[in-house]
Amino acid sequence: MTGNRGVVYQGPGRVEVQDISYPEFELKDGPGVNPANVGRKVPHGAILKVVVTNICGSDQHMVRGRTTAPEGLVLGHEITGEVVETGPDVEFVKVGDLVSVPFNISCGRCTNCKARRTEICLNVNPDRPGSAYGYVDMGGWVGGQAKYALVPYADWNLLRFPDRDRAMEKIMDLTMLSDIFPTGFHGCVSAGVGVGSTVYVAGAGPVGLAAAASARLLGAAVVIVGDLNEERLAQARRFGCETVNISQGDPGDLIAEILGTPVVDHAVDAVGFEAHGSGEKAGQEAPASVLNDAMKVTKAGGAIGIPGLYVTGDPRAVDEAAKVGSLSIRFGLGWSKSHAFYTGQCPVMKYHRQLMMAILNDRVRIAEAVNAVAIPLEEAPEGYRSFDQGAASKYVLDPNGYLGTG
Amino acid sequence: MTGNRGVVYQGPGRVEVQDISYPEFELKDGPGVNPANVGRKVPHGAILKVVVTNICGSDQHMVRGRTTAPEGLVLGHEITGEVVETGPDVEFVKVGDLVSVPFNISCGRCTNCKARRTEICLNVNPDRPGSAYGYVDMGGWVGGQAKYALVPYADWNLLRFPDRDRAMEKIMDLTMLSDIFPTGFHGCVSAGVGVGSTVYVAGAGPVGLAAAASARLLGAAVVIVGDLNEERLAQARRFGCETVNISQGDPGDLIAEILGTPVVDHAVDAVGFEAHGSGEKAGQEAPASVLNDAMKVTKAGGAIGIPGLYVTGDPRAVDEAAKVGSLSIRFGLGWSKSHAFYTGQCPVMKYHRQLMMAILNDRVRIAEAVNAVAIPLEEAPEGYRSFDQGAASKYVLDPNGYLGTG
Amino acid sequence: MTGNRGVVYQGPGRVEVQDISYPEFELKDGPGVNPANVGRKVPHGAILKVVVTNICGSDQHMVRGRTTAPEGLVLGHEITGEVVETGPDVEFVKVGDLVSVPFNISCGRCTNCKARRTEICLNVNPDRPGSAYGYVDMGGWVGGQAKYALVPYADWNLLRFPDRDRAMEKIMDLTMLSDIFPTGFHGCVSAGVGVGSTVYVAGAGPVGLAAAASARLLGAAVVIVGDLNEERLAQARRFGCETVNISQGDPGDLIAEILGTPVVDHAVDAVGFEAHGSGEKAGQEAPASVLNDAMKVTKAGGAIGIPGLYVTGDPRAVDEAAKVGSLSIRFGLGWSKSHAFYTGQCPVMKYHRQLMMAILNDRVRIAEAVNAVAIPLEEAPEGYRSFDQGAASKYVLDPNGYLGTG
Amino acid sequence: MTGNRGVVYQGPGRVEVQDISYPEFELKDGPGVNPANVGRKVPHGAILKVVVTNICGSDQHMVRGRTTAPEGLVLGHEITGEVVETGPDVEFVKVGDLVSVPFNISCGRCTNCKARRTEICLNVNPDRPGSAYGYVDMGGWVGGQAKYALVPYADWNLLRFPDRDRAMEKIMDLTMLSDIFPTGFHGCVSAGVGVGSTVYVAGAGPVGLAAAASARLLGAAVVIVGDLNEERLAQARRFGCETVNISQGDPGDLIAEILGTPVVDHAVDAVGFEAHGSGEKAGQEAPASVLNDAMKVTKAGGAIGIPGLYVTGDPRAVDEAAKVGSLSIRFGLGWSKSHAFYTGQCPVMKYHRQLMMAILNDRVRIAEAVNAVAIPLEEAPEGYRSFDQGAASKYVLDPNGYLGTG
Repeated sequence: MTGNRGVVYQGPGRVEVQDISYPEFELKDGPGVNPANVGRKVPHGAILKVVVTNICGSDQHMVRGRTTAPEGLVLGHEITGEVVETGPDVEFVKVGDLVSVPFNISCGRCTNCKARRTEICLNVNPDRPGSAYGYVDMGGWVGGQAKYALVPYADWNLLRFPDRDRAMEKIMDLTMLSDIFPTGFHGCVSAGVGVGSTVYVAGAGPVGLAAAASARLLGAAVVIVGDLNEERLAQARRFGCETVNISQGDPGDLIAEILGTPVVDHAVDAVGFEAHGSGEKAGQEAPASVLNDAMKVTKAGGAIGIPGLYVTGDPRAVDEAAKVGSLSIRFGLGWSKSHAFYTGQCPVMKYHRQLMMAILNDRVRIAEAVNAVAIPLEEAPEGYRSFDQGAASKYVLDPNGYLGTG
Repeated sequence: MTGNRGVVYQGPGRVEVQDISYPEFELKDGPGVNPANVGRKVPHGAILKVVVTNICGSDQHMVRGRTTAPEGLVLGHEITGEVVETGPDVEFVKVGDLVSVPFNISCGRCTNCKARRTEICLNVNPDRPGSAYGYVDMGGWVGGQAKYALVPYADWNLLRFPDRDRAMEKIMDLTMLSDIFPTGFHGCVSAGVGVGSTVYVAGAGPVGLAAAASARLLGAAVVIVGDLNEERLAQARRFGCETVNISQGDPGDLIAEILGTPVVDHAVDAVGFEAHGSGEKAGQEAPASVLNDAMKVTKAGGAIGIPGLYVTGDPRAVDEAAKVGSLSIRFGLGWSKSHAFYTGQCPVMKYHRQLMMAILNDRVRIAEAVNAVAIPLEEAPEGYRSFDQGAASKYVLDPNGYLGTG
Repeated sequence: MTGNRGVVYQGPGRVEVQDISYPEFELKDGPGVNPANVGRKVPHGAILKVVVTNICGSDQHMVRGRTTAPEGLVLGHEITGEVVETGPDVEFVKVGDLVSVPFNISCGRCTNCKARRTEICLNVNPDRPGSAYGYVDMGGWVGGQAKYALVPYADWNLLRFPDRDRAMEKIMDLTMLSDIFPTGFHGCVSAGVGVGSTVYVAGAGPVGLAAAASARLLGAAVVIVGDLNEERLAQARRFGCETVNISQGDPGDLIAEILGTPVVDHAVDAVGFEAHGSGEKAGQEAPASVLNDAMKVTKAGGAIGIPGLYVTGDPRAVDEAAKVGSLSIRFGLGWSKSHAFYTGQCPVMKYHRQLMMAILNDRVRIAEAVNAVAIPLEEAPEGYRSFDQGAASKYVLDPNGYLGTG
Repeated sequence: MTGNRGVVYQGPGRVEVQDISYPEFELKDGPGVNPANVGRKVPHGAILKVVVTNICGSDQHMVRGRTTAPEGLVLGHEITGEVVETGPDVEFVKVGDLVSVPFNISCGRCTNCKARRTEICLNVNPDRPGSAYGYVDMGGWVGGQAKYALVPYADWNLLRFPDRDRAMEKIMDLTMLSDIFPTGFHGCVSAGVGVGSTVYVAGAGPVGLAAAASARLLGAAVVIVGDLNEERLAQARRFGCETVNISQGDPGDLIAEILGTPVVDHAVDAVGFEAHGSGEKAGQEAPASVLNDAMKVTKAGGAIGIPGLYVTGDPRAVDEAAKVGSLSIRFGLGWSKSHAFYTGQCPVMKYHRQLMMAILNDRVRIAEAVNAVAIPLEEAPEGYRSFDQGAASKYVLDPNGYLGTG
């Protein structure tokens, strides 16, 4: 029997690569598995040999101990793989297919899935609408930072790459389809970014950079990325963005130096609840800071896309209100400007096919934009550490040697 | 020369009907007139003999002293009238036309007006985008709770009723086109209300009732209105709505008694910043209460329309944060449910024509829904008082005897 | 073993109720079954005991011999039933559920289904995108004018009624969810009908009446239905529509008598290729007549929804061009008015849930609007005959005595 | 007094540059001026010194004698200029502003303008909704292939370039904002082109090339341009498009050679009624040919944008039906594929600002894409001739020497 190895959360600040079970067509008990999901049959699933799987900023929330993730959780929700076995109910996906997996798990049979809202599928997570692989409070589906992984509802979830060779040439780009490229794109689309827009993207981590690349792909006229991390800002400038280092002042003032006006048409919050202040408050965690800045710098009538994660509970938050997810938001400012706010996980399936087409036809270089770096699966702990320290890189794990890193 | 009379704000809690200037085609200096607007020529304006003009809940914010409105301000932004004179630039509006005036003043020549965003016109208010008649910080355009009023950019702003006699028969309905009917409708439309929806409308004041009537007109399956005021809730039941008295418990629990589930598809916040708590906190002002409840009772994937006013400053607010418009919002809850939030004034012009058609063809009885009550202009102070005390009525002033109230 | 009976096409003008096979979880060979579909396994299917199933105008195209439908074809694509058995892959649908079946069969796993375009599913019909039960060139799925029927991809396709008793009370309304109510609604929605619209619906057959009822549900101000059949027009007047008998003149002139203008905001073509002329040409088949009239009576900037069926081949058409589906369309007229045209089958799944909610909450009486008449399955031939002769009724078959007709 | 010169239509095949009247703020009688427009006051107008003005394919319809354009008509509807005088009602446009003029004239005060449908303005053309400068049956507004031109409703119509020097550097690009860039863009947007799309653009004239450039700007994955003219196709290849020469076969077959499938996601008809057949019928005028091909090559569920002009009457058409604008369209084919069709003039104002932003920020090189060539106004006749003979160029006239051509 084939062995399996995976990245396992071992408590705040610690991840390890360990032997883990080889997937079966059933959701077994384990750390973080919702009792109602234990023993769930998955005849509609496919087992993938993982080709590439990435470390995500939202994994960091868990690893930094900002969640209630249990020790022993196998991490990883950004998965691209080759199908090695299919369950009896799988009709269209075939062994040998090279496929991208949307990080949100969905059933393809509930009201929300039928309405393209796969990020809030009603049938995969007994706790609440929506799910993901290897994530706290998401039902217990095993993570994919591993050699092998199980994908339920395979006919529904998987995106097949049309040509294997062409796909392998672009695999460092295509791996971004499982999460951050659609997530950044969704932030832009929901904010209304289009041809000729001016856009402010808060955050130059991988999602922020993906949002910036998306804005350019959508035809935006000027894309301004803000962050405190100079190295990440330099990365944004590499593909045509303007940048502002918000440690140096008020974002609006810095934007005005670029545009001649302190406002943009659209803003994207690619930071979320672990936000820090700007200007003199640059060193302090300030969870509503990005939202409040976004309202300030977005023109009247503009919209704000919010792919950055906000949580319902944050035990290590800076104040009591934030511990239960309450933030002090200057809502009257947004109201006076007729702002619209779009929140939530990206429904990856809504976008991954068109973004795949853009990649395969050379319309976007997303791997370059986010500075994708391949490392062996066994070096995942170093990847986590380096990313947490602010490296301007997106780490792509190579569990089975497809990339030749090992 | 014709005299003029109007409703004048005289300080917290006090309004009087006084002699005021007859309109000219120029914006003269006066209380609350932005210096940059003083002396502005209005050759594109029309002078109306006011047929009906209503007292609005947002007038109450000023009269209750919750704003910086100056004494001497002529109030009133809900105006329906007969054209008695047109400026030299007016080409299509004619003397004798019976017209509805959108409460938001707009130029018809700026980027926002061209994009149908008349609520944030760039050319009428030197302070910020957007304007209204007789309102604090809105540029200083004279209010219309008066016998005569000036409407700038008349060809752009005015909606002409196609048949005078038919219009006069429905005048108590048509008067709602200037503000609350479109405002309630906009709340529903932006929240995505449609055929078969379940909807929660927070607030049973005139805007809430207009939102509820709009939801029904849009084909909603179940419309639930929540308030603390039993008399206003009774009004909502009169035209087919369900109601919940939120003094009796958590809105979600009360909704579950009606629907069998504690969530609705869409929510409309028709209350705004002067919100009160529910259940045990029913007596206390709690400015984020309606927003937080709306997130609780709206299903994952739903949207929240927010026509209720939120302000950037509220000197008499319950806490320091609220004084500068900051509210403690449980944003993570909304995020986890992928909510969208739509704020701001309603761009009346986007909707008033279609709603006029619905009125004229007997598809909606908005006057009945909001319990419109006609009173003479001279009794406006009593109307303000009664409305402030929670009367389940919408007061329609009759400054020139068209309704025979005098 | 349970027997089965179904309505079978026996050649032009002839249908019979016959013994037919009881469904199995496999698509067997038979009249009209695409060879590529023969033997297809259906473990994802559910077998329904049919509660109600309707005769549709598009069945008539086959029965009138206007298609290449083979003799022996079991007819019927409007199915509502009770689940009596489910295949091994069915996870959420349960035996005993009362369900509505969208007439378009779809897989829930292809690109089009994921984009809510179930009317052009890529996996159910080897001939072309899109399929339906009991219909020529649609892949060979067995029709549902029968006691029992098989529904593939049951978890995806079926709409469960939330309460059995409440559903049975409204079953004559709910039966319209399988086709004509969503189809008429789709015609209106695609034409842009909304609150305050003026609408022209060409055709007062069941789809036209359903479109008219939909327009009213959507808040249209004035709905005008046109036909040559006085009895059907009378039916339209019963629920608040205006009507024009197009044998009496040009539709535009007749509309002007009602509206004071010869144009409406939106038009719906609920007739399709078997159209007849208007005025002096009222007796003649004229396949482009409704389209050309629709362009004439729709205002500049309006849109035309076209749920009426147009075919790629019509062997009995009036002229050579029409035999291959080419019609002489006054396209320049539409272009000069900036018209948009929306064609194709309705994707029922997009609408059936919201329309169910509207029915269950008494917001629409669709059975009354289309004059639904229940008859026993065995009387289907009389129903076909009567409907073909222009009866202003929608025939609902009662194969298992749920309605007590037998 | 300043003199004026303009391009004047002198009968089929003949244009001349002549002395013409200097504009006044009144629409004077002249060739093609609608009697109801004679003497119309234009106090809201601005007089422009024309910086650049282009020859358009739709001018060619007139010059080729395919319309009823009267001799003496001053041509030209693609105008960019410097404001030299404003009427008394103009409030925001200033003398010295450098501005782009939308080819569609609109009032900014009617229902359609308020709904952004400026292409069908109700107040500028007594004949029908919609108007343009220097065009037959469009009300009689004087053309702008001249040294000076009058623009009515200047505050509404004109787009001001924010920086004069930066604008003059890009003037060969910005001149395309008056018509063909927005027109091509509108074709793509209405067809639903977006990130990752495959697109077929029928026609490689300037509008087709502008549509192709727009598709790329919108992020399309593959853009295929079809034409019979090899030189024009070469032009399309220069900026990254694929091409098919439809004289060499069926467009679907040629597309399959590129994409591996004979269908695209979206199609744009940039040809219109003067279409020719493909393959063996390549030499013959066949007015429905492009529409019928578009349905063939567009996938089920796709949409077709039709900026190409179709007319209500064409006295020199190939057959009697086409003479009254009736075309033999294979409508059943489109219906079976659920196609949507979008027709009509582009409402330029809806797009010109965002496209200006894309130009000024180097996101698109539209002048290069359409091969813009500047010539002196006096050489306009040669430009018309050369363009009519199929030159792969867009001719930009330089009436006042801003470009230094003279």
